[in-house]
Amino acid sequence: MHAPSEQGYIQQVSIDCVIFGYQDQQLKVLIPKLLFRGDFWALPSGFVYQDEDIDDAARRILQDRTGIKEVWLEQFQVTGTANRNSRAFVDQLLELNPDLFSRWQTRRQEHEWFTRRFISIGYYALVDINQVVPQKHEIDACIEWHTIRDIPPMIMDHNQLVSKALETLRLTLDQKLSAFSLLPEAFTMKDVQALYETIYQTTFARNNFQKRILHLNALERLEKKFTGAANKAPYLYRRQQ
Amino acid sequence: MHAPSEQGYIQQVSIDCVIFGYQDQQLKVLIPKLLFRGDFWALPSGFVYQDEDIDDAARRILQDRTGIKEVWLEQFQVTGTANRNSRAFVDQLLELNPDLFSRWQTRRQEHEWFTRRFISIGYYALVDINQVVPQKHEIDACIEWHTIRDIPPMIMDHNQLVSKALETLRLTLDQKLSAFSLLPEAFTMKDVQALYETIYQTTFARNNFQKRILHLNALERLEKKFTGAANKAPYLYRRQQ
Repeated sequence: MHAPSEQGYIQQVSIDCVIFGYQDQQLKVLIPKLLFRGDFWALPSGFVYQDEDIDDAARRILQDRTGIKEVWLEQFQVTGTANRNSRAFVDQLLELNPDLFSRWQTRRQEHEWFTRRFISIGYYALVDINQVVPQKHEIDACIEWHTIRDIPPMIMDHNQLVSKALETLRLTLDQKLSAFSLLPEAFTMKDVQALYETIYQTTFARNNFQKRILHLNALERLEKKFTGAANKAPYLYRRQQ
Repeated sequence: MHAPSEQGYIQQVSIDCVIFGYQDQQLKVLIPKLLFRGDFWALPSGFVYQDEDIDDAARRILQDRTGIKEVWLEQFQVTGTANRNSRAFVDQLLELNPDLFSRWQTRRQEHEWFTRRFISIGYYALVDINQVVPQKHEIDACIEWHTIRDIPPMIMDHNQLVSKALETLRLTLDQKLSAFSLLPEAFTMKDVQALYETIYQTTFARNNFQKRILHLNALERLEKKFTGAANKAPYLYRRQQ
């Protein structure tokens, strides 16, 4: 929820972002929580300026929240049911935080703008979690990584958006070679397998998995990883440039 | 292009439909052509009513053009670059057809509405071509099936939308079991193979292909097809109910 203003935005269109990171063999999502009374968690969201490409709007929202510019970014769904609005959420927020009434100087107008039906364009992003410095907004109490099994209840349909983003990610992981964006620049085959197993919540046989990945022709083999035990050291890989 | 009116629609959001059919081992797309001077072909398009789900809007546009209600329908892309508008097209249309000026009674207003930037939600549909009775609108000269290798130049970015729809269709054909929607209710394995070969523009080895399809666990085997030569008659299949 950015500065509520009608100025310059396309009306009734919003962008919701599911930002995936990977750490300690866990897939995580970056989610801010509002500062106000009430447990209001919500996906990083925003609107589209009249003179802005929708992809650029998504990149702006992502950079604003992660501090990084180059991320894997992909649309996964447009949500546009007729009854999709944030009226229930905004009303509850105002009820629990009556002081907001006075802070929103043109409250009625903003309330009207915010609580109209919005068509939401869902983007998911894949980031190297070590590069990210999560940014909270003035109206956020915090912004945190949550493992996908431990995501708090969010406003509106935001939990469903995470599920749908994950489903889409799984569907085209091999075709789009997207998973490597979750890893640091250099990684071992074992790292890739652990990542895939985390994303699909299953295990793969090592030999078959290695064949599957090499068959993608997406990786470049680097030197062996330094482990001290030269013979058994695994190779490092990186995405082909 | 339906009746140009601002009444009741969400502004700056449009729906563009790529309707795929399959016939004579050709993948085809249903495209209307405007009645006016100038060769204006354009994908079936429309807008979203304030009280209408976007999926329902797409279904309404499709039913209106095909006469059928139940079709495979899927979003494939939101196109939303800042410079995406139909100003060039509408201006050209009006220049070639000056009589339209007088027909459009509130012309300036409608021109302004139509030629604003639109965010387009792209849907593709898969239909059994034999069920379709193509419907032209009052402002159409015709509506025709075009094979994908023989699609006329269309207005704006509509040719690119067809390419992107086809790319998306290819990407998830097995996972989504969508291809069977292009066939009549009962079909042979040979029919499926011909369809896949058409969609991917390649050939598959018969045995491997049959394994691949049966492995999907999506089909139900029916009686043998009556050909007169009982022994060599192929089995008929249909999608599992």
